[in-house]
Amino acid sequence: MSRIFNFCAGPATLPTAVLERAGGELADWHGTGMSIMEMSHRSKEFVGVAEKAEQDLRDLMGIPDNYKVLFMQGGASSQFTMIPMNLLRGGSKADYINTGQWSTKAIKEAKRFCEVNVAASTEGNNFTSAPSQAELNLSPDAAYVHYTPNETIGGVEFDYVPDTGDVPLVADYSSSILSEAIDVSKFGLIYAGAQKNIGPAGLCVVIVREDLLGNTIEGTPTMFDYKVAADNGSMYNTPPTYSWYLAGLVFEWLKEQGGVEAMAELNRRKAEKLYGFIDTNDFYANPVAKNNRSRMNVPFTLADAGLDKTFLAESEQAGLMNLAGHRSVGGMRASIYNAVPEDGVDALIAFMADFAKRHG
Amino acid sequence: MSRIFNFCAGPATLPTAVLERAGGELADWHGTGMSIMEMSHRSKEFVGVAEKAEQDLRDLMGIPDNYKVLFMQGGASSQFTMIPMNLLRGGSKADYINTGQWSTKAIKEAKRFCEVNVAASTEGNNFTSAPSQAELNLSPDAAYVHYTPNETIGGVEFDYVPDTGDVPLVADYSSSILSEAIDVSKFGLIYAGAQKNIGPAGLCVVIVREDLLGNTIEGTPTMFDYKVAADNGSMYNTPPTYSWYLAGLVFEWLKEQGGVEAMAELNRRKAEKLYGFIDTNDFYANPVAKNNRSRMNVPFTLADAGLDKTFLAESEQAGLMNLAGHRSVGGMRASIYNAVPEDGVDALIAFMADFAKRHG
Repeated sequence: MSRIFNFCAGPATLPTAVLERAGGELADWHGTGMSIMEMSHRSKEFVGVAEKAEQDLRDLMGIPDNYKVLFMQGGASSQFTMIPMNLLRGGSKADYINTGQWSTKAIKEAKRFCEVNVAASTEGNNFTSAPSQAELNLSPDAAYVHYTPNETIGGVEFDYVPDTGDVPLVADYSSSILSEAIDVSKFGLIYAGAQKNIGPAGLCVVIVREDLLGNTIEGTPTMFDYKVAADNGSMYNTPPTYSWYLAGLVFEWLKEQGGVEAMAELNRRKAEKLYGFIDTNDFYANPVAKNNRSRMNVPFTLADAGLDKTFLAESEQAGLMNLAGHRSVGGMRASIYNAVPEDGVDALIAFMADFAKRHG
Repeated sequence: MSRIFNFCAGPATLPTAVLERAGGELADWHGTGMSIMEMSHRSKEFVGVAEKAEQDLRDLMGIPDNYKVLFMQGGASSQFTMIPMNLLRGGSKADYINTGQWSTKAIKEAKRFCEVNVAASTEGNNFTSAPSQAELNLSPDAAYVHYTPNETIGGVEFDYVPDTGDVPLVADYSSSILSEAIDVSKFGLIYAGAQKNIGPAGLCVVIVREDLLGNTIEGTPTMFDYKVAADNGSMYNTPPTYSWYLAGLVFEWLKEQGGVEAMAELNRRKAEKLYGFIDTNDFYANPVAKNNRSRMNVPFTLADAGLDKTFLAESEQAGLMNLAGHRSVGGMRASIYNAVPEDGVDALIAFMADFAKRHG
């Protein structure tokens, strides 16, 4: 097999070792004569896979015992609805911090269910920074505070965890979960669509403090009730078993790599190399405030946008795939999640240097 | 690889040829150096896979042009909510036919959103039959009529499609879709969780008549709005790409087998053999009315329930897996979906005959 370097923002590249293992055992899992995807979710085999995945995630993130881990369907976009439905708990107001397109989508959906106080927004600078703690206008009566630690499209990442006092903090960690150690106890709820740092699309991991469960708004779909999911071990209905299994393989792989601490070190090195190159080469630019630059998603522009198509064509020829920026913003974007090896970043930088020399 | 015969009700067995192909190309799809699950859902490669899957399904089922095909997440259980949310269209009442545990779950969820008229129920005979057309007490002012053509747990199947006049007919075809030809134009909406006759768990196919879209109740989650899904080609958010791809492989395989007509003939033969054996052997019994016996799920009991564990242990030894009945009813159940080969049914009957001889 000849694998390329894939910088897609999501669905994103997965560890080659995970894919080779999954391919090898797809049709016959551990000599059972069945695929893991053909097994009942209630079989001892699959329950073993599911429980190990949860335990490995708990180990990797140091998730406290008073937090439930849910493996849900629907992606992060479904969470935009589930969060107000579950976390308003009789309240009528929530704080949202707006740092880009994903925050904006979360706000739009929440407004259908409650009053939203935008506690801070960096729309004024075209979402090229995150607000500081001092800039947050938090409401004392908010049911929760929602923010997006890393904005996949703008490439903006918070360099701190907001302090919200006793108000539960809710974080859309879709694009940076497992990329570094975080203190879960600071959060009321963490959610993450799988298709960046966890596994294939079609799975969403939710980590939620137990005391927040059990008080949904009227009309909440049963499948959107966290307590129903928690009480049934994420098996109120048939869960996406194959995606859950693949997530488990990724968690195992992460442990083998040294866990999130090792990933954080690798990710820091990868990002520093790439931003360092961009900052010292006049042909490329990144607009984000230096302390808010995403370690996961690195957007950049060429000095001459007329060369974008040439850049994309030549980079593909060089085996560097999916570098086009999001369709809403254009330019380039290199997503360098956990599974993108340092070699990939080195190859990208070498290509970018050569391209600038030839076209600059 | 040594494959066994898997009679699991779901997640269920998939065609061996599909699994072998998927395993072989898991880490490198068509020489791209990427897995299909690592590709953007908006890439030309994945869009090609997605569109072909939809077209193949349209071809297989003869889906008219005025029907949308949606590839959604959440399983059939999410549809239990989406149906009233989308199809009440200003109405306040819906008819439901109750033929077993899945109908009952659908009714329970619908009652949270509207008045439910149970147009017929066979609970009185412990769900061992389906009502006839004459037994349906349909409401003239119902927004829709919901039924379950095949009950997976009880093994009860309608031998006709209810005539509901101008009231849209909604069918949970999770366990019998693609097992025979159906006239889609008789339905307002058909839905089917993938994990029986379509592919892996985590995908739900919805086939809906266009004119029913666009009038949801207040508070419908954006991700539960069929029109949003339809207007965005099931890509309002990131869809479960790998499950969609696998469904497409199953649709291709079905076409190679001769389509649903060939499947219907094979399924009829498999079911006739198995019921025929059960009816002529005093050691086994099936309680369902003969004209309502499911071609997909065949529950049966042993003359001595004390032998159930022995039966299960010995059948596993013989490579006949997952024959235990649903945890709510006990006994045995052989699910013989499209992907269970006739050889599997023959092997099961041979084992059952031998077991009865030794223990009867």
